[in-house]
Amino acid sequence: MKNTFGTSVSVTLFGESHGAMIGAVIDGMAPGIPVDVEYIKSRLALRRPAGRMSTARVEADEFSIVSGVFGGYTTGTPICILIPNTNTKSADYDATKRLARPSHADYTAYMKYHGFEDYRGGGHFSGRLTAPIVAAGAIAISALKGKGIYVGTHIKRLAGINDRDFDDIREDVSELEDMTFGVLDGDAAKKMQSAILSAAEEGDSVGGVLETAVIGMPAGVGEPWFDSLESLISHALFSIPAVKGVEFGRGFAIADDKGSTANDPLRMEGGRVVTATNNNGGINGGISNGMPIIVRSAIKPTPSIYKSQSTVDFKGGSEETLVINGRHDPAIVHRARVVADAAVALTLCDALSMRYGTDWLRGDNL
Amino acid sequence: MKNTFGTSVSVTLFGESHGAMIGAVIDGMAPGIPVDVEYIKSRLALRRPAGRMSTARVEADEFSIVSGVFGGYTTGTPICILIPNTNTKSADYDATKRLARPSHADYTAYMKYHGFEDYRGGGHFSGRLTAPIVAAGAIAISALKGKGIYVGTHIKRLAGINDRDFDDIREDVSELEDMTFGVLDGDAAKKMQSAILSAAEEGDSVGGVLETAVIGMPAGVGEPWFDSLESLISHALFSIPAVKGVEFGRGFAIADDKGSTANDPLRMEGGRVVTATNNNGGINGGISNGMPIIVRSAIKPTPSIYKSQSTVDFKGGSEETLVINGRHDPAIVHRARVVADAAVALTLCDALSMRYGTDWLRGDNL
Amino acid sequence: MKNTFGTSVSVTLFGESHGAMIGAVIDGMAPGIPVDVEYIKSRLALRRPAGRMSTARVEADEFSIVSGVFGGYTTGTPICILIPNTNTKSADYDATKRLARPSHADYTAYMKYHGFEDYRGGGHFSGRLTAPIVAAGAIAISALKGKGIYVGTHIKRLAGINDRDFDDIREDVSELEDMTFGVLDGDAAKKMQSAILSAAEEGDSVGGVLETAVIGMPAGVGEPWFDSLESLISHALFSIPAVKGVEFGRGFAIADDKGSTANDPLRMEGGRVVTATNNNGGINGGISNGMPIIVRSAIKPTPSIYKSQSTVDFKGGSEETLVINGRHDPAIVHRARVVADAAVALTLCDALSMRYGTDWLRGDNL
Amino acid sequence: MKNTFGTSVSVTLFGESHGAMIGAVIDGMAPGIPVDVEYIKSRLALRRPAGRMSTARVEADEFSIVSGVFGGYTTGTPICILIPNTNTKSADYDATKRLARPSHADYTAYMKYHGFEDYRGGGHFSGRLTAPIVAAGAIAISALKGKGIYVGTHIKRLAGINDRDFDDIREDVSELEDMTFGVLDGDAAKKMQSAILSAAEEGDSVGGVLETAVIGMPAGVGEPWFDSLESLISHALFSIPAVKGVEFGRGFAIADDKGSTANDPLRMEGGRVVTATNNNGGINGGISNGMPIIVRSAIKPTPSIYKSQSTVDFKGGSEETLVINGRHDPAIVHRARVVADAAVALTLCDALSMRYGTDWLRGDNL
Repeated sequence: MKNTFGTSVSVTLFGESHGAMIGAVIDGMAPGIPVDVEYIKSRLALRRPAGRMSTARVEADEFSIVSGVFGGYTTGTPICILIPNTNTKSADYDATKRLARPSHADYTAYMKYHGFEDYRGGGHFSGRLTAPIVAAGAIAISALKGKGIYVGTHIKRLAGINDRDFDDIREDVSELEDMTFGVLDGDAAKKMQSAILSAAEEGDSVGGVLETAVIGMPAGVGEPWFDSLESLISHALFSIPAVKGVEFGRGFAIADDKGSTANDPLRMEGGRVVTATNNNGGINGGISNGMPIIVRSAIKPTPSIYKSQSTVDFKGGSEETLVINGRHDPAIVHRARVVADAAVALTLCDALSMRYGTDWLRGDNL
Repeated sequence: MKNTFGTSVSVTLFGESHGAMIGAVIDGMAPGIPVDVEYIKSRLALRRPAGRMSTARVEADEFSIVSGVFGGYTTGTPICILIPNTNTKSADYDATKRLARPSHADYTAYMKYHGFEDYRGGGHFSGRLTAPIVAAGAIAISALKGKGIYVGTHIKRLAGINDRDFDDIREDVSELEDMTFGVLDGDAAKKMQSAILSAAEEGDSVGGVLETAVIGMPAGVGEPWFDSLESLISHALFSIPAVKGVEFGRGFAIADDKGSTANDPLRMEGGRVVTATNNNGGINGGISNGMPIIVRSAIKPTPSIYKSQSTVDFKGGSEETLVINGRHDPAIVHRARVVADAAVALTLCDALSMRYGTDWLRGDNL
Repeated sequence: MKNTFGTSVSVTLFGESHGAMIGAVIDGMAPGIPVDVEYIKSRLALRRPAGRMSTARVEADEFSIVSGVFGGYTTGTPICILIPNTNTKSADYDATKRLARPSHADYTAYMKYHGFEDYRGGGHFSGRLTAPIVAAGAIAISALKGKGIYVGTHIKRLAGINDRDFDDIREDVSELEDMTFGVLDGDAAKKMQSAILSAAEEGDSVGGVLETAVIGMPAGVGEPWFDSLESLISHALFSIPAVKGVEFGRGFAIADDKGSTANDPLRMEGGRVVTATNNNGGINGGISNGMPIIVRSAIKPTPSIYKSQSTVDFKGGSEETLVINGRHDPAIVHRARVVADAAVALTLCDALSMRYGTDWLRGDNL
Repeated sequence: MKNTFGTSVSVTLFGESHGAMIGAVIDGMAPGIPVDVEYIKSRLALRRPAGRMSTARVEADEFSIVSGVFGGYTTGTPICILIPNTNTKSADYDATKRLARPSHADYTAYMKYHGFEDYRGGGHFSGRLTAPIVAAGAIAISALKGKGIYVGTHIKRLAGINDRDFDDIREDVSELEDMTFGVLDGDAAKKMQSAILSAAEEGDSVGGVLETAVIGMPAGVGEPWFDSLESLISHALFSIPAVKGVEFGRGFAIADDKGSTANDPLRMEGGRVVTATNNNGGINGGISNGMPIIVRSAIKPTPSIYKSQSTVDFKGGSEETLVINGRHDPAIVHRARVVADAAVALTLCDALSMRYGTDWLRGDNL
């Protein structure tokens, strides 16, 4: 299955940037999870563009849940979330529909769909489709909270500026929940925002690194081969547009360590097995060890920029110069933060339901 | 499915380090692919430990193919490859079976399998299970070669020492095919080998970064969401033990770029659409663009070291000091190189068969 | 995945009988398939209740396709079809929501969803959800027609009355396409309609057998084990509510044959390999042999009847007498006919796309 | 995936009739299930041909379990079972390898595998591959027994002779466990055996109907759409060679009933909800209702007969007369009985593990 991810809990995505609606179907979510429409709205608001740091196309993201929720709770049957597209200016794209925007999917879409693809605004490839992922993820996050599992993402790095490391992860994750610009260090936040605005003024864009933490994950979830927890989480994260790297724990830096410093010594803490360090990011042998899961995603700079670029007419075969009009983001890192939360939360709901059964997420109150 | 990966072409893995046999079943491979036993042996030889840079446990890796190959060609039905375990010293592990080796899967296996797991030598989690992946991958690599698609991996970095970048990728990939220590720059190779031997003398271990290139991949393969080519490849790579990061093209470095430098301009070359740079590693919007696929995997230092480490008795709940005996690798990066090749090749066989059908890999000669 | 079926071409179903909307997402359909809204309407009309032979709840089934179709053709990305519920009388169900309607899913839904299920009108279990399957199936049928593959279903038997056997299958399938009551023999049709009306007058219901034929199927599609074409088709058919049996070719009758009469002798016909008889229903060893695929589905009498029935209050644990109010069908066999077509067509689109690749259904014109 | 079935608990099948080995990999079975080698042997013995009622090719079916079992218990990791082929007479098949044996898979295999298939003795399509299914099923049956769930199959009908109906199903299932010829009524058994022997003397073959019962199944397992318990079980059963029909409860006979007689009234029995009749075969809306699951499979007469048959040379395109030599079964119904048990048991282990988690099958004793 292509636009579907997950086994016991799955999400199916549909829609195009300039079509009638985009949406998602979440299937397999336990019955009895409270669905808080205001919370979903708040997560969508964090993804929504705002101000000069983002595209001028602002969608209300008025969503409706047309199935799978009854009396305020999940029923256990498929939940369909619909988000209409309203603020579309399709004419923006007509002039350039044969010209591949560099580092976009125009050319690859053409090679796959032979010109039948909806080219307007990136069509099905548009970052706009992350909105239903965020909405679906909000329900997944609520389900996890009910079991004491919390997910949070900060911008670890943007345009070369670093946020501070996670410190008290529980507190940091809690704080991130409502931050409109998810950076833990206030000074770093300001510098990052300035960098985004500078890039916008230059008609350029910047990228960054998101760092996601999960606390409260029980030990013993995931599989040794092929469905390792890292495999599943990276599978989900790499389907977010613009993600070009995923690493767990110390990630690429561990390649320069020695075993004696990279290894996480174990000790007892309040009767629980814990590790003194967390270089493995909460996962050993593909299976959760009960420590915080730490995963970072590299986000490339938005490929839509206002500068003139060299490209080709992929139907005609001529070389061309392209100036992209339309409305674009000088950075998407800050908006992608809640998308990473959603991708991770949905993956964990699936892995937990596979491990403990389809009632577990609601569990005690059924 | 857990120890199975892939949809149209799949691989199922089984076995434990000290059990009777390990092996793999490859299903869905096109009929008519020549199966060259010598080539499989040569790939296994590249994975096999050798000399002081590796564990003293050397297995002959005498394999047999018991199904799915007839008259020297794949039949199209499941191919079962068996590799007996012969050189096992299970007694090495008895003393420490309740003690979690740091950064190994002992504790997580216990939390998942409740003590029923085969703990000897890492059991099902052992790196030894990469041998059948390599054997299966050898058949996948042969199939891809028949379509002009070539896969090769070098050690990009080990113990802080860098190999040179890919230059003429086609030539580099060809050269890597037979190298016993897969480093393109001879001086770097010597330094890396010294670093491994030094670590071995210290009873320690080192890690590194593998870089895999694929050339000849047709444009238009992969899916926009969830089954992006990056999602599929990272899913496979993250199930290799010790991989803690995966990145494509410029990877994490792209996070510090601006759009104007990160974007890959397009141009025509011999009637084909190409990109002037390849910062996206051959994939846009989850779909191959015809440029080389470039993916790097961060490999952590082997967690088995001879130094004394702090750990716990996970059954008894006491804190303990552990000295690991047994036979271990001071580095696995050089051995993991062909495992990365195999994981990528199997993933591409699957994606190509999904895209073009189950005969495509043999195609013209059926 | 639960409410999703298929691998290369898949369909995901959502909605409840008395919720806001029901619908389906079809993913993986080849790009470039013409989408004929009038044809979809005509298929929905054949499923829709009409006259005294059906429930008094008549829905307009005004559907909208909100994604995956652009300029009248499939794009290759997920197609979401929405059908609003309008004519709902939920109050009908309040009185009986703790009483299990015999042979309905009320009690099993409660055991699975713990009371969080939407109980109104059968909720997610309602036969109403076959409407989006029919709409999705209409697109699949169009795709198959483009490749010369035709699907048609007649009522082989209803209330003990038999239709004639298929004769010239190509002609019969063509004729069935537009029949409002899908019976080939006019006299049998009249008798069946009388039987339905009699049952309605008695407050009772009748069942029957549907027989589906597929012509033009290429030989060589399907898998020997587990994904045999029979396995895939029966998997789809058994998810249609009320189906309690599925058989291919001579089906259960073949159990009484001898090998010498059951075997289908082969011969040449116009340069093609054909069989003289078709007792195997077009499938040998799980793989299509190029002969018509013949499959029959047993449909139980509608469980909603007006007669008083013995049941239990599954929350309270008391035995009760139930009289079902609401609006019900004295038979669904005639309405289910196009659902069987849809289930078979979607399954074949999947199997063909797995076999020949994702472009094959459109193929020549891409 | 093709030769793999199941999601949480899966089985992967490999091998050819005249290759080195056949086998299966069972993945996802809970850890801690006792593996009784003698029990597996006894199940294989029930499948093995014996005496004049079966083929003269008798294999010892000496199997070995090379992974996934440690200290007599399942580890939770993949279990690989190997069965060598020893008694092969491949020369029997050389003369006829271009001639399609009627109602066998020779021609369809050729259309799928283009002549690369191992044609000897039916190759991968051979009924011999049911041996590893039976061995895998024996472990599944043991797991189910540990939870009070029992599976048993009798020959309901053979060559037109009926066995008696299930009476006290628990007792009947228990009795069937060790019967070498699984017929409950001794007189019917004798008549059936005579019919098989008569067919053998005529060089012909007979078919029949298997009826499988499951008792102790908890209510609430299965899915409303697409993964209905009927869909899953029929998917598994239809991959057994020679199965041409599957029906649940009253099956095809229900098509002639009225709702008022077909419906299963509910009542309380010892505090449990039960149904007075079981026309739905233990499944409503795709979900188990706690009553015995009853499923019947139609088995066609063995297509290998000694009589002369009309066929074609599928490579050369000529019409030919075929006399099959080799060693064949005049009936496989009695041998297929334990295959049906295995297919149903594996499916239920999967559905139960999806529903209640991967530890449930061992559950209380972990």
